[in-house]
Amino acid sequence: KELSLAPNIVTFDRAKMEDLLKRRFFFDQSFAIYGGITGQFDFGPMGCAFKANLLQAWRQFFVLEEQMLEVDCSILTPEPVLKASGHVDRFADLMVKDVGTGECFRLDHLIKAHLEKIAADKKTTDDVKTDCQDIIIKLDGMNKAEMAAVMQKYNMKSPLTGNELTEPIEFNLMFGTQIGPSGLIKGFLRPETAQGIFVNFKRLLEFNQGRLPFAAAQIGNAFRNEISPRSGLIRVREFTMAEIEHFCDPSDKSHPKFDGVRDTELLLYSACSQMDGKPAEKATIGEAVDKRLVANPTLGYFMARIQQFLVKCGVDPKRLRFRQHMANEMAHYAQDCWDAECLTSYGWIECVGCADRSAFDLTQHTQATGVRLAAEKKLSEPKTVDVIEAAPNKGVLGKTFKKDAKLITDSLAKLREKDLEEFERSLEANGAYDLVVEDAKKFTLTKEMVAVKRYQKTVHVEEIIPSVIEPSFGVGRVMYAIFEHNFKMRENDEQRTYLSLPASIAPLKCCVLPLSSNAEFVPFVKTLSAALTRVDVSHKVDDSSGSIGRRYARTDEIAIPYGITIDFDTLKEPHSVTLRERDSMAQVRIPVDDIAQVLHNLAYSKQTWSNVESKYPKFEQQESKGV
Amino acid sequence: KELSLAPNIVTFDRAKMEDLLKRRFFFDQSFAIYGGITGQFDFGPMGCAFKANLLQAWRQFFVLEEQMLEVDCSILTPEPVLKASGHVDRFADLMVKDVGTGECFRLDHLIKAHLEKIAADKKTTDDVKTDCQDIIIKLDGMNKAEMAAVMQKYNMKSPLTGNELTEPIEFNLMFGTQIGPSGLIKGFLRPETAQGIFVNFKRLLEFNQGRLPFAAAQIGNAFRNEISPRSGLIRVREFTMAEIEHFCDPSDKSHPKFDGVRDTELLLYSACSQMDGKPAEKATIGEAVDKRLVANPTLGYFMARIQQFLVKCGVDPKRLRFRQHMANEMAHYAQDCWDAECLTSYGWIECVGCADRSAFDLTQHTQATGVRLAAEKKLSEPKTVDVIEAAPNKGVLGKTFKKDAKLITDSLAKLREKDLEEFERSLEANGAYDLVVEDAKKFTLTKEMVAVKRYQKTVHVEEIIPSVIEPSFGVGRVMYAIFEHNFKMRENDEQRTYLSLPASIAPLKCCVLPLSSNAEFVPFVKTLSAALTRVDVSHKVDDSSGSIGRRYARTDEIAIPYGITIDFDTLKEPHSVTLRERDSMAQVRIPVDDIAQVLHNLAYSKQTWSNVESKYPKFEQQESKGV
Repeated sequence: KELSLAPNIVTFDRAKMEDLLKRRFFFDQSFAIYGGITGQFDFGPMGCAFKANLLQAWRQFFVLEEQMLEVDCSILTPEPVLKASGHVDRFADLMVKDVGTGECFRLDHLIKAHLEKIAADKKTTDDVKTDCQDIIIKLDGMNKAEMAAVMQKYNMKSPLTGNELTEPIEFNLMFGTQIGPSGLIKGFLRPETAQGIFVNFKRLLEFNQGRLPFAAAQIGNAFRNEISPRSGLIRVREFTMAEIEHFCDPSDKSHPKFDGVRDTELLLYSACSQMDGKPAEKATIGEAVDKRLVANPTLGYFMARIQQFLVKCGVDPKRLRFRQHMANEMAHYAQDCWDAECLTSYGWIECVGCADRSAFDLTQHTQATGVRLAAEKKLSEPKTVDVIEAAPNKGVLGKTFKKDAKLITDSLAKLREKDLEEFERSLEANGAYDLVVEDAKKFTLTKEMVAVKRYQKTVHVEEIIPSVIEPSFGVGRVMYAIFEHNFKMRENDEQRTYLSLPASIAPLKCCVLPLSSNAEFVPFVKTLSAALTRVDVSHKVDDSSGSIGRRYARTDEIAIPYGITIDFDTLKEPHSVTLRERDSMAQVRIPVDDIAQVLHNLAYSKQTWSNVESKYPKFEQQESKGV
Repeated sequence: KELSLAPNIVTFDRAKMEDLLKRRFFFDQSFAIYGGITGQFDFGPMGCAFKANLLQAWRQFFVLEEQMLEVDCSILTPEPVLKASGHVDRFADLMVKDVGTGECFRLDHLIKAHLEKIAADKKTTDDVKTDCQDIIIKLDGMNKAEMAAVMQKYNMKSPLTGNELTEPIEFNLMFGTQIGPSGLIKGFLRPETAQGIFVNFKRLLEFNQGRLPFAAAQIGNAFRNEISPRSGLIRVREFTMAEIEHFCDPSDKSHPKFDGVRDTELLLYSACSQMDGKPAEKATIGEAVDKRLVANPTLGYFMARIQQFLVKCGVDPKRLRFRQHMANEMAHYAQDCWDAECLTSYGWIECVGCADRSAFDLTQHTQATGVRLAAEKKLSEPKTVDVIEAAPNKGVLGKTFKKDAKLITDSLAKLREKDLEEFERSLEANGAYDLVVEDAKKFTLTKEMVAVKRYQKTVHVEEIIPSVIEPSFGVGRVMYAIFEHNFKMRENDEQRTYLSLPASIAPLKCCVLPLSSNAEFVPFVKTLSAALTRVDVSHKVDDSSGSIGRRYARTDEIAIPYGITIDFDTLKEPHSVTLRERDSMAQVRIPVDDIAQVLHNLAYSKQTWSNVESKYPKFEQQESKGV
């Protein structure tokens, strides 16, 4: 039903687009001359410039605009960090193996493909079709046993050989390695950039002078050892993420700028609608937050900003929706989660996640390290609190336990209220308490060594563990959606394809084209190129042979928004050139002295094309049809 | 002797600088709350912004200015690629282990520290001192046996325990992992970004329409499993590189822009001077290339550009030299190699390498894959050449060898002239030839199956394997040198330290400081902040309490070049603010309406501070001394 919102999609020809992207080296499989590795891609000059511009736009739009604290953390991560975050134990996909060949399949993909095939079969009964569609919708939330049951019910075999398949196996998606020459320190390539921000929370809070809320951001690579990556840039083993962690008071998730985005209209596909088989619905983010469909204003603020950013960078707003995670699909600690999904020829794909992760990560790292990742909140008025704490007699402890004394006092400081009450009871009842420390060592402590004290104190601040709202961008997926949404064909000429990327993120802003190899054009090309470089306008000189129409077609393919042509009129005083706009193919005639500044203004969104058209005379010349 | 060139260095206090960098979170050890991992660092908000600005400056200076083809390639690299590049076999450091504790030491560092200690000892004879110094200079070029001999000669033990040490062991510095769920595809984290460019050479050449010379560039992370990393940012396990590979005709290494840099003066420390114990010498790059001290103009051009870039970004030209690799230190394929070294408190450290790698890498990947990584060069006039080639009779081969026939024809196409001559002789003498293919399979081929043909043809182009000139920047090291060269103390106030980073790469361009918490200042702060954001000026609002002098001192620490203060005069019409420059602490009074544009101009090097000083009235107010 969402497809009806996007009529263009039916005429889209993926093979044609991929041919263009590969031929003009936007990207290609990595190590292609070695046969390539699936799920890894290299960005060529055009893809790399597009990516760099997109990331620069992201920095401007999020980091600069909101004065976020950007960090750049390590990729190689020691095991304990990812143990605490839950990745060592739970960051796995289910796979099955072909018992004959050993080929591995990602189980949910296998089930989905199998059931889609059944559902598409004319001979399938309506009941079975409904069942298949129902399973496909709920697949993301299914556990191992449920998937195994589906496999059995539909008698699934290896799609390649027809062989039997193994039981589902959990395969951890992290790439492991050893750090240092001893081979003893186990590490992983980070599967997300977020943890680097969490482990630095204390320093970041300090940098922000102890105040909440604040946001940290990070752009960087992450790695997932996908079981059988396909789908081009959509599912890869190595990818760039751009993540924001917004830390705020859990009891106050308002956002000072929410009113500025309140009227932004989003297409929302709620968990309820998904369960009930209803379509996504349009609503302003203000309405959605007011009726609590979106959990809080900060989450809503970021959803609106995500949409604004994506649309600014070329995502078609008609092919963009926010899909809410269903309860069984969401991490247990998450309060709410909405994925910005783009409609592509692969279906709706998640490009940006936006989740309220509550205090989960900071709590986990606090427990693992004993370093309190918390903030202080000033109380509206001072309050009196009951305190219970262990008061060690350091002299006696030192004499008794020698070098273990410090370990014991450290452990005492970490005891929680419940432990301390137990401690108090045990001291009263038995005159002693068995303290168990980290490595399961046990120390018997007597009344002479430690007292459990209770008293009251007046406090002016309370300690809170901040909640985290996390917008997380998959940069490659955003790029792919932009490619699809901007791949166009000229009317009446299907062979002439182009990419209508916005000028601000186009790989190059301009092309300089001498009409022919006439030597008199050369000094103009040089002067223009130098002038464009001076005002930071990336450009390409195309002095190859070939008709001007043919060369325009080549620059259109690599999304160059503006073309400057030097022709015989340029040689006459006052010197002038033509300037052509890619999408409309309209041209104006501009004095040579103005051109660099005009291009700068166009490239950096300081002037619009229609403004340029109104200021300079139209240049009329039929563009030859791709000859 | 180089030290005499840099008198400042003696007053430099590294501990003080490191305290500043850590306290204001420029960078810190990664995973510090987990105890940290040596050789890994996280960049906090100030370090990250500095790094991002430095990389952006690099892109402008090299990629945009020279229209290089920037790419972004995979980090995870399959084994065959790094086998061909030589890294699997040779990318190793020598280490020794403490036989008692198993502690690992990098051998060259161990020897250097041991000999420096001996040389510094008053009891050491002059002869021994000279020997120690001589070994230290030649250490970089020593092999395993030579180092083992030095160890024995000076009877070296573990510096930590005094235990015996093992024989030197080669330790490969690459981090290994497995790609995919089968565990069968071995991969490594790339130890340099360069290989990603080489394996894409064909596509890049095509993108450049087949023309030489051209340069490709890449910014990205690389990984080296250092044996015992120390020295802060200088020796790390994970680092960002910015590399350029300039491909050119091996018989023509001129550079069109060389004349533009010919008069640039560099401090050159030639291999001869090093061997002869002579100091580095100043020379223009024109002189150095003319007398062949620097191998060719393209290498010279890049050396001059590297120096220009480093100095622009804040490296002290008095603490910068180019050191030539000695013959035994240089890779066997390299024609010439000069390291841009910066003098720091760790001594002279290599920050940028600049090497002529000849055709080595392209040749290696061609041999490994059979894909010819070569360019075509138009001959000045056509020439006639003798051709010898194997002409397979595909019908007969197919009948005889069935599915192996393709393998045979592929192998035949790869035979070199020498093999073909042998083939021809064998066919004539025995009527057959034994073809050995890749996996040691042997096929006996008869005259009926394959003929060896000789003929002449006229060619208009010749195939050449381009030479590669490679400037390679260690971004973290460049950052570190900039930190040291810009760490300053206020005259008469050693406690008040600051970083004099150039505005173009400073983490933030400006600070907005309301004089007090007076509510009337608030709207001005908001308006100013929004205006600065609109013109892309990164900034920080510091509305914390504390005297203005104290807040200036805080902004000086994080290298903010300009401070805008909103005071009581701001409230009067015409509204104005003060603008303060960090290094001189001079202030001017500027109308509120002008300030954003002036800041933009200052931040993007479009206006100088002295120009601003001449345009606006000086603001005289004694800055209180850090109170």
